[in-house]
Amino acid sequence: MRGGTSKCWIFDARDLPPGADRPGGRLDEVLASAFGARDPRQIDGVGGATSTTSKAAIVHPSIEDGVDVDYLFAQVGIGTPGVEWGSNCGNCATAVGLYALLNGLAVPTGPRSTVVLRNRNTGVRLSATVPTPGGTVPELGTATVPGSLAIGVPVGLGFRNPAGASTGALLPTGAGTELLGGVPVTLVDAGAPAVLADAAALGATALENPEEFAAHVPALAALRRAAALRMGLATEADPVSHAVPKAGVVAAPGDYITTLGETVRMADYDVAVRMVSMHAPHPVIGLTSAVAVASAVLTPGTIPAKLAGNRPSATVVRLGTPAGVVAAEAETDASGTVRLVTLHRAARRIATAHLLVPALLQESV
Amino acid sequence: MRGGTSKCWIFDARDLPPGADRPGGRLDEVLASAFGARDPRQIDGVGGATSTTSKAAIVHPSIEDGVDVDYLFAQVGIGTPGVEWGSNCGNCATAVGLYALLNGLAVPTGPRSTVVLRNRNTGVRLSATVPTPGGTVPELGTATVPGSLAIGVPVGLGFRNPAGASTGALLPTGAGTELLGGVPVTLVDAGAPAVLADAAALGATALENPEEFAAHVPALAALRRAAALRMGLATEADPVSHAVPKAGVVAAPGDYITTLGETVRMADYDVAVRMVSMHAPHPVIGLTSAVAVASAVLTPGTIPAKLAGNRPSATVVRLGTPAGVVAAEAETDASGTVRLVTLHRAARRIATAHLLVPALLQESV
Repeated sequence: MRGGTSKCWIFDARDLPPGADRPGGRLDEVLASAFGARDPRQIDGVGGATSTTSKAAIVHPSIEDGVDVDYLFAQVGIGTPGVEWGSNCGNCATAVGLYALLNGLAVPTGPRSTVVLRNRNTGVRLSATVPTPGGTVPELGTATVPGSLAIGVPVGLGFRNPAGASTGALLPTGAGTELLGGVPVTLVDAGAPAVLADAAALGATALENPEEFAAHVPALAALRRAAALRMGLATEADPVSHAVPKAGVVAAPGDYITTLGETVRMADYDVAVRMVSMHAPHPVIGLTSAVAVASAVLTPGTIPAKLAGNRPSATVVRLGTPAGVVAAEAETDASGTVRLVTLHRAARRIATAHLLVPALLQESV
Repeated sequence: MRGGTSKCWIFDARDLPPGADRPGGRLDEVLASAFGARDPRQIDGVGGATSTTSKAAIVHPSIEDGVDVDYLFAQVGIGTPGVEWGSNCGNCATAVGLYALLNGLAVPTGPRSTVVLRNRNTGVRLSATVPTPGGTVPELGTATVPGSLAIGVPVGLGFRNPAGASTGALLPTGAGTELLGGVPVTLVDAGAPAVLADAAALGATALENPEEFAAHVPALAALRRAAALRMGLATEADPVSHAVPKAGVVAAPGDYITTLGETVRMADYDVAVRMVSMHAPHPVIGLTSAVAVASAVLTPGTIPAKLAGNRPSATVVRLGTPAGVVAAEAETDASGTVRLVTLHRAARRIATAHLLVPALLQESV
């Protein structure tokens, strides 16, 4: 499936071999083998050898009331047979929502159907709303997302009560702004935990194209580790995660050129953001990161709120990403707590496939 | 399927939609749409966004006596919806041979089965020999190829009478060595037409890793065009092909380090070669290029023959590529004509899939 700007192989948990039902061990081995993860070019498997095309989701019907589908997100290694399970992926979630309808894990309920998803990596609940005219699930639509010219089925991806799924609080340390290795950052947990640095403090502008932004990746990798420790997501004894928390820089809006060559004016958006995905600049922004940045913009005292001009009652937060403007719709309650963030996305089924997995073939010989 | 160091989507011609049965027009549109070719990251399709992972083959039973399977090779565009049909791909041919046996287009004939293939792009005939113990076709074996750690089914790929398929002669201009834009080159047509330049004349060593070799790609692109005109493969009025002829440099052996970090000694091989694939250094060597270089080594008067020490009766020609040594077995007749070149390769089925093609879905709405 394509979900937004990601390509995800989605597995029905019931199709996986015995024992490959949870992170670690056999499931990791099966995914790494199916993707050809050991090879940096992923020539011997279905992986696409980039962070946005080396993704999988394992889906099964939920036993929880009010939830249709549970899914586990897997970031499959590139040049290493490991699998990272520490994060969620919003793009894959849009694909999972459409997949659930196409494959009968959820049933159309009218001209628009909403599938409630639970991400088992982070515990966060999401909703995916898909047009289902006449009770049928479309294979294609005319929706597009920044970063891709491709059309797909429109999917409204909703993050309900997005704050604190990983750490218990929107601001895990209680502070809106703090110093991390001398750099002013906001640590926020909404959609996903994220460290958002003031771009200027790193010598960046948050208006860079991905190629230009590559120079800032090492500094953000260091901030990611320091933030993981500060937010209680890891201890010194844990291995370094390249996925958790999300890491990036933010700045006040300015004019810039997208990777597709279009000009974005400073008046067209609220805050400039450049994120890192694993070891490389993210070509757009991960959706969970978008929820984190939008939630921070709506939270007084954070760096993104200040850069976006302190408008905590905004209903739409427009994020300036390398590929264009990603708009997040936000609903807040009377106390100012963000209750729902919705992103308008596109997804489609690319293929249905039966995978031949070397690790399993070897066992059967 | 993986074939050697390439990933190829193989289509049974009988599964394609009406009208998509030949290069140009509808078939190109279907392939470009299925691969997501318009996007440089091929996010919306099954392509892998590199020259070695954006390949397809269209296969059908042959009506020709002595040939089991005909196939068309397609190099699908990356960032452009075009498809190049001008060349063959030996790696895909190994995959086509195994595919034919796995899918009943050819029948196992004993403990080893040989499938005769005809490449419709170039007219060249190849044979693929696969172990079929007990008349069964394996999904996996223990064979490897330089450039990949992955294991696969051993496939012996034979190029029978490889000379002259595109131009009518092994040496299309009649000369073993000539000057092209002031650069000494050999123009050879065996397996595929190729222009092989003396590395030193371009300031190269043919011992470079792909990253280092990138600097020489523009010079080779210019030589490719000039060679296409000189060999009669194109006229000034034709658009520039980035695939035909194959282009690269050759040098006498020297020690070098492979991309997997292993040392190759000058005594371990006969001639150093660095090829270009489309717009980038080839990470190994295309198999049709390997046949061209090996045939040139066995032909007195060519640059590769001189660099390899003039041994026209050699039965194995060892090519030093960025990923390691590729050995070509050669059989020559009494007149010195190369009758068969065999390369020992590995292939495997990665997945069987039903593709959802946006261009076709749009028509059916």
